[in-house]
Amino acid sequence: MTELKVNRVAVRKLLDAVKADGRISLTAPEGKLVCDAYGIPVPGEGLAKSAEEAAQLAQGMSYPVVMKIVSPDILHKTEAGGVIVGVKSDEEAMFAYEAILANAKTYKSDAKIEGIQVQQMLKGGTEVIVGSITDQSFGKLVAFGLGGVLVEVLKDITFRLAPISKEEALTQIGSIRAHELLDGVRGSEAVDRKALADIVVRVSQLVTDFPEIVELDLNPVFATAKSAIAADVRIVVDFDYRPREPAHSHDDIVKGMTRILKPKSIAVIGASNEAGKIGNSVMKNIVNGGFAGKIYPVHPKADEILDIKAFRSVKDIPGEVDVAVFAIPAKLVAAALAEVGEKKIPGAVLIPSGFAEAGEPELQAEIVEVGKKHNIRLMGPNIYGFYYTPENLSATFCTPYDVKGSAALSSQSGGIGMAIIGFSRSAKMGVSAIVGLGNKSDIDEDDLLAFFEQDEHTKIVAMHLEDLKDGRAFSEAASRVSKKKPIVVLKAGRTSAGAAAAASHTGALAGNDKIYEDVFIQSGVIRARSLRQLLEFARGIPLLPTPKGENVLIITGAGGSGVLLSDAVVDNGMTLMKMPQDLDEAFKAYIPPFGASGNPVDITGGEPPATYQKTVRLGLEDNRIHALILGYWHTIVTPPMVFAKLLVEVRDEMKAKGFEKPIVASLAGDVEVEEAAEYLYQRGIPAYAYSTELPVEVLGAKYKWARGAGLI
Amino acid sequence: MTELKVNRVAVRKLLDAVKADGRISLTAPEGKLVCDAYGIPVPGEGLAKSAEEAAQLAQGMSYPVVMKIVSPDILHKTEAGGVIVGVKSDEEAMFAYEAILANAKTYKSDAKIEGIQVQQMLKGGTEVIVGSITDQSFGKLVAFGLGGVLVEVLKDITFRLAPISKEEALTQIGSIRAHELLDGVRGSEAVDRKALADIVVRVSQLVTDFPEIVELDLNPVFATAKSAIAADVRIVVDFDYRPREPAHSHDDIVKGMTRILKPKSIAVIGASNEAGKIGNSVMKNIVNGGFAGKIYPVHPKADEILDIKAFRSVKDIPGEVDVAVFAIPAKLVAAALAEVGEKKIPGAVLIPSGFAEAGEPELQAEIVEVGKKHNIRLMGPNIYGFYYTPENLSATFCTPYDVKGSAALSSQSGGIGMAIIGFSRSAKMGVSAIVGLGNKSDIDEDDLLAFFEQDEHTKIVAMHLEDLKDGRAFSEAASRVSKKKPIVVLKAGRTSAGAAAAASHTGALAGNDKIYEDVFIQSGVIRARSLRQLLEFARGIPLLPTPKGENVLIITGAGGSGVLLSDAVVDNGMTLMKMPQDLDEAFKAYIPPFGASGNPVDITGGEPPATYQKTVRLGLEDNRIHALILGYWHTIVTPPMVFAKLLVEVRDEMKAKGFEKPIVASLAGDVEVEEAAEYLYQRGIPAYAYSTELPVEVLGAKYKWARGAGLI
Repeated sequence: MTELKVNRVAVRKLLDAVKADGRISLTAPEGKLVCDAYGIPVPGEGLAKSAEEAAQLAQGMSYPVVMKIVSPDILHKTEAGGVIVGVKSDEEAMFAYEAILANAKTYKSDAKIEGIQVQQMLKGGTEVIVGSITDQSFGKLVAFGLGGVLVEVLKDITFRLAPISKEEALTQIGSIRAHELLDGVRGSEAVDRKALADIVVRVSQLVTDFPEIVELDLNPVFATAKSAIAADVRIVVDFDYRPREPAHSHDDIVKGMTRILKPKSIAVIGASNEAGKIGNSVMKNIVNGGFAGKIYPVHPKADEILDIKAFRSVKDIPGEVDVAVFAIPAKLVAAALAEVGEKKIPGAVLIPSGFAEAGEPELQAEIVEVGKKHNIRLMGPNIYGFYYTPENLSATFCTPYDVKGSAALSSQSGGIGMAIIGFSRSAKMGVSAIVGLGNKSDIDEDDLLAFFEQDEHTKIVAMHLEDLKDGRAFSEAASRVSKKKPIVVLKAGRTSAGAAAAASHTGALAGNDKIYEDVFIQSGVIRARSLRQLLEFARGIPLLPTPKGENVLIITGAGGSGVLLSDAVVDNGMTLMKMPQDLDEAFKAYIPPFGASGNPVDITGGEPPATYQKTVRLGLEDNRIHALILGYWHTIVTPPMVFAKLLVEVRDEMKAKGFEKPIVASLAGDVEVEEAAEYLYQRGIPAYAYSTELPVEVLGAKYKWARGAGLI
Repeated sequence: MTELKVNRVAVRKLLDAVKADGRISLTAPEGKLVCDAYGIPVPGEGLAKSAEEAAQLAQGMSYPVVMKIVSPDILHKTEAGGVIVGVKSDEEAMFAYEAILANAKTYKSDAKIEGIQVQQMLKGGTEVIVGSITDQSFGKLVAFGLGGVLVEVLKDITFRLAPISKEEALTQIGSIRAHELLDGVRGSEAVDRKALADIVVRVSQLVTDFPEIVELDLNPVFATAKSAIAADVRIVVDFDYRPREPAHSHDDIVKGMTRILKPKSIAVIGASNEAGKIGNSVMKNIVNGGFAGKIYPVHPKADEILDIKAFRSVKDIPGEVDVAVFAIPAKLVAAALAEVGEKKIPGAVLIPSGFAEAGEPELQAEIVEVGKKHNIRLMGPNIYGFYYTPENLSATFCTPYDVKGSAALSSQSGGIGMAIIGFSRSAKMGVSAIVGLGNKSDIDEDDLLAFFEQDEHTKIVAMHLEDLKDGRAFSEAASRVSKKKPIVVLKAGRTSAGAAAAASHTGALAGNDKIYEDVFIQSGVIRARSLRQLLEFARGIPLLPTPKGENVLIITGAGGSGVLLSDAVVDNGMTLMKMPQDLDEAFKAYIPPFGASGNPVDITGGEPPATYQKTVRLGLEDNRIHALILGYWHTIVTPPMVFAKLLVEVRDEMKAKGFEKPIVASLAGDVEVEEAAEYLYQRGIPAYAYSTELPVEVLGAKYKWARGAGLI
């Protein structure tokens, strides 16, 4: 990001004056000064203290002009009769001066009036809104939307974390639904998007430099082919606002998370010999799961738990301990945690529930305090624990899971965690980790991202979450990690969250979920639309090689599947390759005369295995094609398992020759196709029976990630 | 529908004159006359033949006025400089008259000029569009949208088959995305929706009465709180256009379809003893499937097929035959079909491919001819055949299927048909029928609807289709049938269909898929968004009793599932019941103090079976609640099968007491939840493992149907 030329000193001085006045908003002339200091174009204007002065000022900037009351006591100027537009002559200007003054007095007799602002009236062009709000989780956000009544109804506005670069601002501007309007419709001229982007960038810098600016509206901004000018400025300040500070450095996070997820030694506080107790399940899972490190059961009386020497307190354990897993009632946690601190154990996995989620926020605040005091990272409370398969570690009371693989999953909710485990087992999905975050009293998603970023066993991170405690930290981590590894997020609570009523216009347009949606886009996060999709993406995406370009080809035995697969390609934001003539003819040579070349390549239903073989081979071989979607139709001539085996063979054969592309498959047919789909999936080809949409969704998600990471 | 007062004679006369002129469009004054005749409000106006007359006319209707060239040779008036707006005085009117005349001469020197139209200029209000287009499949459609540049970009327009009632028109107007705008936004007044609906109704009647009006635009219509006036009228005619006539009466359709789907005797043309041949598979499936009627194999040489006496030709069969199933090569079909006609067999199931789909449209045209000549209804060609389980009839070469149930499914594509069979078998979904429609040379979806409407074994119809040959007949049948039985449609080819370029404005806004979407809504059809959804809806909807109201309650053991289920409720257009205080307290009595009442009722994770029992019982018992969504969380305290069994028990217990409501369930947990979900599904409770969205989608589809059928 190149440094903008801005006058920070001027804004600092102005804000200090506002603070000294005890005000929470800026007057219009103050707003203009702020814009001037940050190079945000505003119309010509001046402050008149008399009717004659008003006429004089107006003359200087050419009619028509707008005249507006300037008073710290009148925030809603229009309501107060404090605005007159379309003033066309000296006479009208003088009249308007007196009229506004009279209205203001009627509206609020004791209002302190500083004068009347005379402003050049902007005409023509497209009205847009640029604004900024301050979110509890995400901090400073900059907004862009179309102005006017219709957009207010359609809520066509986009958000980005501030500050942003000009390039990002251009992407943001292009992401409103009605962005075509900016290019000129029905003879109107295209607006200068760069001028708009420049304003967005400057606003984003302004609120970053001055966090006390908690709300800002430039509404409307008039955009034309040559310029963009903010006709009205509204700035609200909160001098008590402090941006969130990161609690830990990146290195400390990785170090801390590594000791928890890859410990050399574990203490189990509340370990038990009694079957059915959580402390017993946890011990059994750690021991029987094959964890090779040291295990120290902690129990007030027992000498041994599961034949392992037990200790009265963690303080009695002779060597170093990396993590303490808690399986004791909520009320006992704080005291035990203090001992963990004294023993200098840097991580605690707090399985117990009975804290904030059960109406005991004080109990939770207490353990957070203890954790901070002793510098212990806390996972939970109210969680099932975690799995880290590379170390054969099941630090959980749930059923053990040991299918090793490359997907790391996390969930805020225990129920969803159980669904993850069930689905994984059922689909034989290999995982590197499954982590419960529960109440997120300390460790949250950005901590996990920092760990999985550098974890060689993890190729994809899939997260279920209901909120982000620190959305900004999440976005920073996700922006970095998503360049290397796909991140899929299922954000629950999309529809329930009504955004809190906000004073500013931009704020009122900001649904909470829209902010999540936009920040995920900005951070390269793939958003899953359902639990099943989260799970299918976690399973399928890591199997696919990264496509090298946008040309997707469908090869299908069933014309009907071809149509549905084409629909799904478009729905999932991919592009059906436009077939070059030579390639078209090459495919034609392999298929019956009544089959259809083009895209989809319809090989027709009655074809033998060789036809699938030849067309798939060609699809992999030609470098103009970047991904394959196969539509299989169950026939006696090419039964499901014959198809599945030949597909894997061709894939392997071509891979050996250096041709590697993502392949997904949709299988239509009788129940045998289920076995074939399973066979394919286990061999790295995401394949689904009775569905034309699921395989394409998985491929689409891979594409979305690859684009976000700048790989295509 | 109440009869509108309209002047058909005037329009007939006017159109006859246009026809005599050899014109294909109406002039603006003619358009106004048509509007006058149909009671569509238009601005005051007159035709001036001189500058003075223009000034005189303008005076009479009060300034400002718009002046427009009237010439049959100038269609694009603005382009020709033939429009001047905002004419404010007599002087200006006279000047404008001469200016327009001069412009028109420059534009087209030989243009026949009839005068200059002087028109009252409408101001203020909201601009909308009312229009009509003529679609090949759907016939006359009436359109409503918002006017202005933004809507053109957002394509916010809706269609309905004409004619429509005022009530339907109000629904149509309310279905644009930005309909809030009509209610007044930011101080602007709400428009008179009834006045708009009246215009829509009158347009729909006009194009119905005069099919030669193939395109009509009222654009813009200015809508205010008191009136709606069409400022501009554009009408295009095609005197060769003929609306499609129904080929068969409803009774004939039912009779014909009954003889095909419930035959007493079947001839199999091309029956064979040779394994692997289609004619062998078909015979085996019919015989072994347990069909109890007469079977007549037809073979040129064999005396017996599968030990059943064979005939050389259908003409040799002694008794009456209801249907002939064809399993012979395409080229032989026409001749054999003629014999079927001579034998007076009223139905033919044409399995063979090799017709239009294989580049042989003439071959298909020939069989259609033969069918018409002999009054034979044709199913196919290019199909797998059909299943009708109540008669144990598998008239297909595919694998037999015999799980009886209440879902009738059809597919245009063979591949999708195979997916239906595979899914059905895998999910043990009971079906009444599965029918392949293939090339739809004759029998199509509306014929099937007419049959399934009166088929006592069918409770739901689920259809895959790529197009509708006769969209109007489909809509008529669907509108009627959907009042009794849910119809689910998966329309493939959503994204590929670019609407053919149309001359009219309304036409240009009409994406082909948008018309399907709107006609489905108008006809009470539930649209499936994916193949899997079509199948899940077919499976789940008929199991659910019809809800008696909109109050949906979630009872969940996992808070995380509750949040996701709530999202899904909103996504699927349902309403989370607002809990009355007494009910809230009644639930509270059953759940732990840290559980959450309200909606969702969060019973928390560690609860015993009794908690599920009591809360579900209460949910079924209280008549203010209309549907239940359960979120189960796998625990040792209440294992999956314990939950499943108790849920069925409580459901049955309450049903016996007269309390019956739709229940769906989402099961989060380890793999045992799959068995529990299956157990529940088999007992009438749609339940899904690892998914919070699927059960809610099924319930949402049931609701959508019930609302469309007027049951809630």
